[in-house]
Amino acid sequence: MRRRAFLTRSAPGHIIESVKNRPFGGERKPVKAGNNMELKEAVAKLKETQRVMHAYNHAMGVMYYDIETAAPKNAIEGFSNTMATLSEITYKLSVNEENFALLDYLSEHAGELDEITRREVEEAQKGLRLLRNIPIEEYVEYQRVQSEASAVWHEAKVNNDYAMFEPHLKKLVEFTIRFAKYAAPEKDPYDYWLNEFEEGFTQDVLDKYFARIKEALVPLIHRISEKQQPDDSFIYKFYPVEKQRELSEKLMEMMGIDRACCAIGETEHPFTTGFNKRDLRITTHYYENALTYSMYSVIHEGGHATYEMGNCDELMDSPLSGGASCGMHESQSRFYENIIGRSRAFCGLVLPVIKEIFPEQLEGVDEEKFYRAVNKAEPSLVRTEADELTYSLHVLIRYEIEKKLMHGELDTKDLPAEWNRLYKEYLGVDVPSDKEGCLQDSHWSGGSFGYFPSYSLGSAYGAQILRAMQKELDVEKLVAEGNIPAVTDWLREHIHKYGQIKKPAELIRICCGEDFDPEYYISYLTEKFGRLYGLED
Amino acid sequence: MRRRAFLTRSAPGHIIESVKNRPFGGERKPVKAGNNMELKEAVAKLKETQRVMHAYNHAMGVMYYDIETAAPKNAIEGFSNTMATLSEITYKLSVNEENFALLDYLSEHAGELDEITRREVEEAQKGLRLLRNIPIEEYVEYQRVQSEASAVWHEAKVNNDYAMFEPHLKKLVEFTIRFAKYAAPEKDPYDYWLNEFEEGFTQDVLDKYFARIKEALVPLIHRISEKQQPDDSFIYKFYPVEKQRELSEKLMEMMGIDRACCAIGETEHPFTTGFNKRDLRITTHYYENALTYSMYSVIHEGGHATYEMGNCDELMDSPLSGGASCGMHESQSRFYENIIGRSRAFCGLVLPVIKEIFPEQLEGVDEEKFYRAVNKAEPSLVRTEADELTYSLHVLIRYEIEKKLMHGELDTKDLPAEWNRLYKEYLGVDVPSDKEGCLQDSHWSGGSFGYFPSYSLGSAYGAQILRAMQKELDVEKLVAEGNIPAVTDWLREHIHKYGQIKKPAELIRICCGEDFDPEYYISYLTEKFGRLYGLED
Repeated sequence: MRRRAFLTRSAPGHIIESVKNRPFGGERKPVKAGNNMELKEAVAKLKETQRVMHAYNHAMGVMYYDIETAAPKNAIEGFSNTMATLSEITYKLSVNEENFALLDYLSEHAGELDEITRREVEEAQKGLRLLRNIPIEEYVEYQRVQSEASAVWHEAKVNNDYAMFEPHLKKLVEFTIRFAKYAAPEKDPYDYWLNEFEEGFTQDVLDKYFARIKEALVPLIHRISEKQQPDDSFIYKFYPVEKQRELSEKLMEMMGIDRACCAIGETEHPFTTGFNKRDLRITTHYYENALTYSMYSVIHEGGHATYEMGNCDELMDSPLSGGASCGMHESQSRFYENIIGRSRAFCGLVLPVIKEIFPEQLEGVDEEKFYRAVNKAEPSLVRTEADELTYSLHVLIRYEIEKKLMHGELDTKDLPAEWNRLYKEYLGVDVPSDKEGCLQDSHWSGGSFGYFPSYSLGSAYGAQILRAMQKELDVEKLVAEGNIPAVTDWLREHIHKYGQIKKPAELIRICCGEDFDPEYYISYLTEKFGRLYGLED
Repeated sequence: MRRRAFLTRSAPGHIIESVKNRPFGGERKPVKAGNNMELKEAVAKLKETQRVMHAYNHAMGVMYYDIETAAPKNAIEGFSNTMATLSEITYKLSVNEENFALLDYLSEHAGELDEITRREVEEAQKGLRLLRNIPIEEYVEYQRVQSEASAVWHEAKVNNDYAMFEPHLKKLVEFTIRFAKYAAPEKDPYDYWLNEFEEGFTQDVLDKYFARIKEALVPLIHRISEKQQPDDSFIYKFYPVEKQRELSEKLMEMMGIDRACCAIGETEHPFTTGFNKRDLRITTHYYENALTYSMYSVIHEGGHATYEMGNCDELMDSPLSGGASCGMHESQSRFYENIIGRSRAFCGLVLPVIKEIFPEQLEGVDEEKFYRAVNKAEPSLVRTEADELTYSLHVLIRYEIEKKLMHGELDTKDLPAEWNRLYKEYLGVDVPSDKEGCLQDSHWSGGSFGYFPSYSLGSAYGAQILRAMQKELDVEKLVAEGNIPAVTDWLREHIHKYGQIKKPAELIRICCGEDFDPEYYISYLTEKFGRLYGLED
């Protein structure tokens, strides 16, 4: 999981209460907006604001990493207070008339700006579109509702009590629809939110995308579920944490990750965060009785980190550093985790390394057996634990539900029933409790509707990128030889270096020479799992 | 070592370059200073500024902890930039006419303020005394010189090249003298700086103090050096780091440190930092071939943390949280490390615990042998590695040198010779290189003159506090029984709860019922080491 997106989004969150109070901080020179403003001066002002914003985001990011990895338990109250104070300050730094005037002026002169600055202005405008158009009282109220909903969701999940959460979810849905109308009255609300998370994507595109997913994968998964599953029992032997830490080091080395730029921490849920291309942090979680959990977490998070480390130097402290979108970020982490990390070639490469650390546990396990075990495909209940094949069906279910919620076609009261129905229909599983069902993800409780599709798009991007890469590189051979850095070089040149300069759809065109096309993903999965489960006939 | 003092002091440091540039940040309402300002409004304004300052200091403190414990190596550049930006902002938050007017107004109404607020105003005024009276150009220049001097010192130390550092030191000495004159023209410059670090202490007091130290300890150390040293070879056996980590946990448990409020990290040099009484961080360093290094670091840093955890709740986010002074902070860490941790009773208590973790390494070591080994007193070259008995002589040497530097009685060119002469005279050791001599400490390179004495005062406070405590508690018995929390309770009630509400001299009076008196320290050392080395005759 890539955390920065969430963090930035929620930054203005908890603290908006005081928006109408007297502002504080250094004095501010009146800004001359409009025609007589020198363009050069305006750009300098933009860069200066960005520099200061970067410092705040950096500090808050480190605090977040610290609270997850190092802080003692009781640090949480002080942490929340300080995050609230700093978030309030950054909120005021961007949400003010002076900044609006500056951005409007720069937008009017977009043609005279260099590409990076132009995109910075565009992204800043995008980030403020909602906040500029929303009555402040309503926004403050929303923050309150959202914060309450998050707290209630945590409790509801623990207690498996959807009814407790439902009224809060209902309010969030109403706010979400209304806010879309404030920001973009001309748009369908779900289209507005989809575009917020994955620019350029609408229901038109996603309906077709998910229709293909459903059409191709549901029957495939059905056929596979009738086949014999591989023996993966060796994964669940005893693997001491200390030794797994050694494996993490080896994996990062194999990925060519420069440890001078990337640290590894330990948290309940693995994630990646970073403050600039020379300071990335990935985390993992070690389970003594599940070898591959941490292993693939490290590869996945290492993929996120590799993306950001590959940004061009010009983006060092720019708000355009990082990834093009959530979907594009997931495309890279999943590329390393699944397309590389669960490939036959990589399994052959990594097994001897793992065996050196765990010779006893892996006695009698050969490359083929390892490859089959780490690719076991089986319908399940929880998205974050789903395998490569079934993953997108979890997302599809959420997409269909969100769409109905955003159009008033599904009452929040009926959500669990609809959820369970879809899990049965698409994945063939019975959902035993809402805890493992519609309460499993935090996204809705945080007010994020339209975020889920980017998870699936990430996988689909990856498959298309693989095909483009294969035209220039013998990927399988490189991986088998242990030359993953050659793969990374290609990705850096075609994707990573751009950061957020290019939008996701544009990036796919640059990288693949054509528009986004889900067929690559469908055929990738069909071929891989067809072979694995002997469905070639 | 307690790091916050340094951090706060250096905060306005690197970034002052832009002080004359246009300020940024939120707008600021004009402040009505003077008679017609409502006192209530002024207090509210003070508290609000403090709240915001606390958030910045918290964030910068976490960033500092992170860079020392977790960040990858290349994070340093981004770290420096962000610290510079945030320090600049905090500098402007406090160094501005509006804040001066506010503090002046509150000072005039000091009699109407509650004790905490009055002391907050006093401390804020003290912190600004220099900055208000210094020509800004000169301060900017000083920051540049200081930052350069620090960098050169690092290099000079590595290369054992004092000549390279000398011109920088010379400039710093000149600035330090001149700045004292700006801040307090009526005072002797060294007195000004001594008071900055340990309020209430002057050369008058310290001359007498160090005269007694010299008079009593130099001959004592001389006599001891003729005695046979205990066998401490068992300390340098092989003690695996993983097992030493277990010992750290045990030690913190024995000290009664609430782990929900105090985390432990690993760094090159141990230190303590904290952000509020519920979020302390101590660090240690494990050497595989030196059992007691980390052991006493944990106890020492745990003492610093215990002090701050014992602050009363009213100080939670106040600038008065923490310790009364650097000396008082050291008094607590050294109390736990030496007075408790190196007592015969504690050695009896802790040895079985250590033996459980390291049975082989400690075979044949009994309590008495352990006690003698951890109290081995031997003149040495490096202050931070000095034993309890010789420690204050290291400080004495620095005191004498600083005094001469501040009065133009010692040219920086002649410093190494003077240093070496004093080490020979007081400690009887020949200094083989400046690296292990006058280049060993960072303080002067950071522009801190007058800081060293507080290290020694800390030990002296501790001995006096012990005597006061013994009037009410059977300290030895409590420690032997493992009831260190009872000792902590007493310290909390008499010292820790006050934070910085009381000044060090005042605190000694409250706690001990009399003024600071070095004789307790002299007799503590004389008795303890007299017994240990059989000098009772």
